[in-house]
Amino acid sequence: MTTDPANTSAKNWTTNWATNWVPTRDDRFSFGLWTVGWQGVDVFGGAVRPPLEPAEAIEKLAELGAYGVTFHDDDVIPFGSSATEREARLAPFRKALEATGLVVPMVTTNLFSHPVFRDGGLTNNDRDVRRFALRKALDQVDLAAELGAKVFVAWGGREGAESGAAKDIKAALDRYREGFDLLGSYVLDQGYDLRFAIEPKPNEPRGDILLPTIGHALAFINELEHSELVGLNPEVGHEEMAGLNYAHGLAQALWHGKLFHIDLNGQTGPRYDQDFRFGAGNARGAFWTVDIVENGGYDGPRHFDFKPPRTEDMDGVWASAAACMRNYLVLRDKVSAFRADPEVQAALTAARVDQLAVPTVAEGETIADLRAEAFDPDEAGRRGMAFEQLDQLALEYLYGVR
Amino acid sequence: MTTDPANTSAKNWTTNWATNWVPTRDDRFSFGLWTVGWQGVDVFGGAVRPPLEPAEAIEKLAELGAYGVTFHDDDVIPFGSSATEREARLAPFRKALEATGLVVPMVTTNLFSHPVFRDGGLTNNDRDVRRFALRKALDQVDLAAELGAKVFVAWGGREGAESGAAKDIKAALDRYREGFDLLGSYVLDQGYDLRFAIEPKPNEPRGDILLPTIGHALAFINELEHSELVGLNPEVGHEEMAGLNYAHGLAQALWHGKLFHIDLNGQTGPRYDQDFRFGAGNARGAFWTVDIVENGGYDGPRHFDFKPPRTEDMDGVWASAAACMRNYLVLRDKVSAFRADPEVQAALTAARVDQLAVPTVAEGETIADLRAEAFDPDEAGRRGMAFEQLDQLALEYLYGVR
Amino acid sequence: MTTDPANTSAKNWTTNWATNWVPTRDDRFSFGLWTVGWQGVDVFGGAVRPPLEPAEAIEKLAELGAYGVTFHDDDVIPFGSSATEREARLAPFRKALEATGLVVPMVTTNLFSHPVFRDGGLTNNDRDVRRFALRKALDQVDLAAELGAKVFVAWGGREGAESGAAKDIKAALDRYREGFDLLGSYVLDQGYDLRFAIEPKPNEPRGDILLPTIGHALAFINELEHSELVGLNPEVGHEEMAGLNYAHGLAQALWHGKLFHIDLNGQTGPRYDQDFRFGAGNARGAFWTVDIVENGGYDGPRHFDFKPPRTEDMDGVWASAAACMRNYLVLRDKVSAFRADPEVQAALTAARVDQLAVPTVAEGETIADLRAEAFDPDEAGRRGMAFEQLDQLALEYLYGVR
Amino acid sequence: MTTDPANTSAKNWTTNWATNWVPTRDDRFSFGLWTVGWQGVDVFGGAVRPPLEPAEAIEKLAELGAYGVTFHDDDVIPFGSSATEREARLAPFRKALEATGLVVPMVTTNLFSHPVFRDGGLTNNDRDVRRFALRKALDQVDLAAELGAKVFVAWGGREGAESGAAKDIKAALDRYREGFDLLGSYVLDQGYDLRFAIEPKPNEPRGDILLPTIGHALAFINELEHSELVGLNPEVGHEEMAGLNYAHGLAQALWHGKLFHIDLNGQTGPRYDQDFRFGAGNARGAFWTVDIVENGGYDGPRHFDFKPPRTEDMDGVWASAAACMRNYLVLRDKVSAFRADPEVQAALTAARVDQLAVPTVAEGETIADLRAEAFDPDEAGRRGMAFEQLDQLALEYLYGVR
Repeated sequence: MTTDPANTSAKNWTTNWATNWVPTRDDRFSFGLWTVGWQGVDVFGGAVRPPLEPAEAIEKLAELGAYGVTFHDDDVIPFGSSATEREARLAPFRKALEATGLVVPMVTTNLFSHPVFRDGGLTNNDRDVRRFALRKALDQVDLAAELGAKVFVAWGGREGAESGAAKDIKAALDRYREGFDLLGSYVLDQGYDLRFAIEPKPNEPRGDILLPTIGHALAFINELEHSELVGLNPEVGHEEMAGLNYAHGLAQALWHGKLFHIDLNGQTGPRYDQDFRFGAGNARGAFWTVDIVENGGYDGPRHFDFKPPRTEDMDGVWASAAACMRNYLVLRDKVSAFRADPEVQAALTAARVDQLAVPTVAEGETIADLRAEAFDPDEAGRRGMAFEQLDQLALEYLYGVR
Repeated sequence: MTTDPANTSAKNWTTNWATNWVPTRDDRFSFGLWTVGWQGVDVFGGAVRPPLEPAEAIEKLAELGAYGVTFHDDDVIPFGSSATEREARLAPFRKALEATGLVVPMVTTNLFSHPVFRDGGLTNNDRDVRRFALRKALDQVDLAAELGAKVFVAWGGREGAESGAAKDIKAALDRYREGFDLLGSYVLDQGYDLRFAIEPKPNEPRGDILLPTIGHALAFINELEHSELVGLNPEVGHEEMAGLNYAHGLAQALWHGKLFHIDLNGQTGPRYDQDFRFGAGNARGAFWTVDIVENGGYDGPRHFDFKPPRTEDMDGVWASAAACMRNYLVLRDKVSAFRADPEVQAALTAARVDQLAVPTVAEGETIADLRAEAFDPDEAGRRGMAFEQLDQLALEYLYGVR
Repeated sequence: MTTDPANTSAKNWTTNWATNWVPTRDDRFSFGLWTVGWQGVDVFGGAVRPPLEPAEAIEKLAELGAYGVTFHDDDVIPFGSSATEREARLAPFRKALEATGLVVPMVTTNLFSHPVFRDGGLTNNDRDVRRFALRKALDQVDLAAELGAKVFVAWGGREGAESGAAKDIKAALDRYREGFDLLGSYVLDQGYDLRFAIEPKPNEPRGDILLPTIGHALAFINELEHSELVGLNPEVGHEEMAGLNYAHGLAQALWHGKLFHIDLNGQTGPRYDQDFRFGAGNARGAFWTVDIVENGGYDGPRHFDFKPPRTEDMDGVWASAAACMRNYLVLRDKVSAFRADPEVQAALTAARVDQLAVPTVAEGETIADLRAEAFDPDEAGRRGMAFEQLDQLALEYLYGVR
Repeated sequence: MTTDPANTSAKNWTTNWATNWVPTRDDRFSFGLWTVGWQGVDVFGGAVRPPLEPAEAIEKLAELGAYGVTFHDDDVIPFGSSATEREARLAPFRKALEATGLVVPMVTTNLFSHPVFRDGGLTNNDRDVRRFALRKALDQVDLAAELGAKVFVAWGGREGAESGAAKDIKAALDRYREGFDLLGSYVLDQGYDLRFAIEPKPNEPRGDILLPTIGHALAFINELEHSELVGLNPEVGHEEMAGLNYAHGLAQALWHGKLFHIDLNGQTGPRYDQDFRFGAGNARGAFWTVDIVENGGYDGPRHFDFKPPRTEDMDGVWASAAACMRNYLVLRDKVSAFRADPEVQAALTAARVDQLAVPTVAEGETIADLRAEAFDPDEAGRRGMAFEQLDQLALEYLYGVR
């Protein structure tokens, strides 16, 4: 039996999509070059796809409806490039941006791939490596400013440890703070219009990573000299790897005024970092993610940080990239209709969600007043919250049956 | 501020549902009495809802569209009841069955609630307790037969251990086998038309439970004297607590001819046993669950084993019970349309799913023939599998946008 | 076969322990009344042990070597008690404290067991319930001050949600902040010497709990009016339920100056809240926990919040309570010897752990200076970190083979 | 600040180990060539260590005390080698075996690294690939026999799926069975003294892998034509990634007579596959693992399948390999002393562990006899199991304080 190569992929697959949910640049979708460019190397196998030129990625993403691309320094300029090589790599990259009109809303630096970063960058036990990491980050900050990026993401993927004595956590946090303080001062000194966004992750590739969740990173930021310059870039999968509710995490980040950027993708609970396309993971979580992103006060790009599965060829890569955007738009319509539905609004009232916005103690009320109030907890304890009815309405919007 | 009790729950909530996805008895939906009857006791708090009489549960479930109810002995007949009390409890139960026409497709026995079962029933270290557990199970087997149940579920919730030396696992499996062999012999001797269905669970309330997954139970069954009488009753949440794919587990159980019963509910990955209503957990998992239940050869009841959240009053209980059935019907329509869609069929072919049904070695082919075949792995290694395109089609059915 | 009740428990089990690792009051071990007093009620079964009078618990804990007891209001004074009943319950409690000399270093309030708290206390959607919760907390704050407690723990076990629309997270955080601001003001107004310690937990009994980890709570505290009064009470099991490293979490809390109290127990990864005795869970984690508690600057009680397994009778309860303390002392000796070992110190240097305490950029150094430095990353990338040798030394201390 | 390379690793680290716990060939420790030879490539970074020649690995492992090495075909013979190249690679490998006296107790085949295996080998949707996979496996079976290996491990790392429709699970199990049936027939036809050992894994690198746990694989084996030839090779980390108890899994595999081989390493619960050295993960689990391996009837090699962390250079690699063996020997002494301790034996009796070995129903007893027995469950329900005392004894052996 032979396989007709013509059948191995549905080449024109996206062409017959409905005219609904077609992304435009106003939707502000962006992709990391490392997402569509991932060649499929993992612990158990080598590359399955050819290298993808940044310029080609930009052209294709523009065609699919994205408005921006993002990248690690090494994604465009191979590690260790000379100044000449650097310019030789940046020239076609810049040209593709110009040709397509795509912007670079965010950049980041790779402090985790080269062997020198085996124990991390800014918190590497080796002071020489930390200094090198700072230099590498500073160079990329310059490039960020030059390209007009507004956000510099900091994922400290190798900042962590596999064993207890190897890392003095308090000292590591001191060094991490020192690093962000230096970068923040530099941005201010240079007058760059650039903010930093820390991307938390609980583990992988290190046994335990510093600042493992949205919460830990938010707390850390409070200790920084230029904390106003530093916020978060939470990733769906990273929070779900810790069994945490991503939408709740975004809400808390927004409550602190710190949601500077987002990484959208898919995951199936605590296990390896799956980086599925957005929507293809926890579907209910995706609904509530879009709800908080759209309605919670976030105004940055809708950025996808996913990995097209290693099973796919380049057709599959583009299909999954396109699907990320499409799924976001589908869910955006759903949450919009959900919030506008009068029956939903009645159910929210029945669930007393509106009461949570009312201060518990009224203006001018004293503790003595509060204490004087009569209340029958047994009687009140019989009241149901009507959450199931409310949640079923939401689920029916997810299913598209309302 | 006071709360109008009239607003605390949407009393007529289910009445305005569309005329679609209304369950009928042909859909063969069944519920455990302990589901809608759960009063909300957990480790951190007491009952929040009044006791529910079995007869009342039966009437209400009949009204909502169920065709059957299931129960543990203790759900109807309080532990330790005399023969007289037993009959006094069974009389209204039977009467309600007759009045509504509901059937009892499955029963089970509670070998986990009373203090005597603190170390389990059939594998309790204490031989006296094991003997008592067998007697209790035998009594319920008789009742099962009397009520016409065809399946006797065995969830060994307390069969396990928190620590290593406390349980000799090989001896425990011997005793477990002994128990099933005795029960099987009894059923044969009595000429009952009854089969057993083991319900695996990895942990909670024990640190580790025996037969923790579908696989472990399937393997165990092979060692039984009357293995033909014993199959599985897998529960969505129990498998997902171990991070396992429930639909894959059902498929393997069906492959072994052992899917005798199912417990449908919802869970959000490895954590405490959540027992959400069906659909309100892993939504994508629910889609594939219904796909394999409908298309994989299962012909038993669609049984719900869920717990209405402790936030709810009885209105919320009934709303969540009704939603279990409605969600199943919605998903049944979705998977049916998905499988019938010509574009899906083309995508399945592109993904070479059809080739998996073809034997790898042709009839009459020898190993020498096989070895003689020429093949270029590098060339073949460039072929993508087109799984992302296929999966996006499925997701769009879940979303209801195709 | 019958079982001799005399054999069912090793009554004099602790009497033959070595004279080493015998707790004294200087070790400052404390226990919650709800720990040894847990009767074993869980979702799947009722009480297996008789109620334990607080006075009896105090006497027995004193005898075993504890220096303090802690409690929720409801543990001593049944919910809804009149003022007279309250005093009737407190009298023997106070008497037992006096008789034994035990102190009450911490108290807490139960805002999660009664049905009225089905949606939480301070963040309940129902404003009336929130007001009642505040009153209940205020009353217990008064009792805390009266009993000389220095820490008031706040575990918001029911502050959370099972579904997305049921809880407006940002509004809930507003109300949570309002609650802590009011409690903080009250403590200041009354001149109480009392601080609050938030206890994070990711889930159970709610699907997702607010402030799910150490990090989220640390971040939240920064927004409080009297943030200096509020710190953390992290629990081993709660962090490990999210797959997080507890010792790392303690280190970050200490780095922020916020480790006000600790809850020691045992857990086996993401699953239900197991509350094993300290040491009986993640043993390596326990080693590093004691290391950071002893060497990281924490100076509060060593508090155990565990649940003697439901398999145990009261002998087992006391055996497990005694073992919590003994295990802590054993591990304290181990970490002390580990840190003092010259070979360990050499291994720490080989692992360059000392370099992490050195600022990355020297005093007076400029970014230009930093950038001017030559460095060969390929050469440096060949250097191993020698973490495995270091970790093996630690492991051999855990094993007691050095 | 510069770093003296002489300090970066403790070169003579193992030389000062005590004379106890020094492995000998009688201990039958074996290692995969891919363990010490792992260069550190993961999803987020490239190689950090140079390639390791098989002959060098063999010499060093022999020196450290191992008795055997194991390998995938590709570990010795690069994928796609000609017959000449194959022999050129095998010659020094064989020579090193002869020179050291090391044996090859097990081999395996790599059906997961090359792009052609992106959807697996024996269950790849593509029939051509399945046929190629069979040929590759057959070639390695021949080499196994030639080298005197007794076990052929089958880890189906890429046999699985990321999405629901991509894999027809029942068809995949048919093909998997077909593959094992063909390999089994071949072994019988050739008269090879070789058995197969399936290695289960729940996920990574696929979203869900077929035969995800010990249980699923045991069940599958029952359906094979030559099931007597097929058993298991369970890995510590793979079971713990699903939150399962590895020692319990080994016990069940032994109960079925199917523990043909073991893979020892370390893991910290559900997350990415960590492959820590044995002992450096779940330490309590390691104690019970050695207990069942030593006392449960297993008689195969003690095989380590670990990955020296990417932080390490070759000194760290050898230190961690040596530590795997040392930790096993330390734990072997501990479990031996634990089982021999009269106080432990008394505690086992108190915990009624001995009663579990006694059949529940006596020889000749009828069900009527059983049912006639009087029993007071309330009285019996008051008996504690004394598991905490027993487990504390075990823990004190782990700690080395008894």
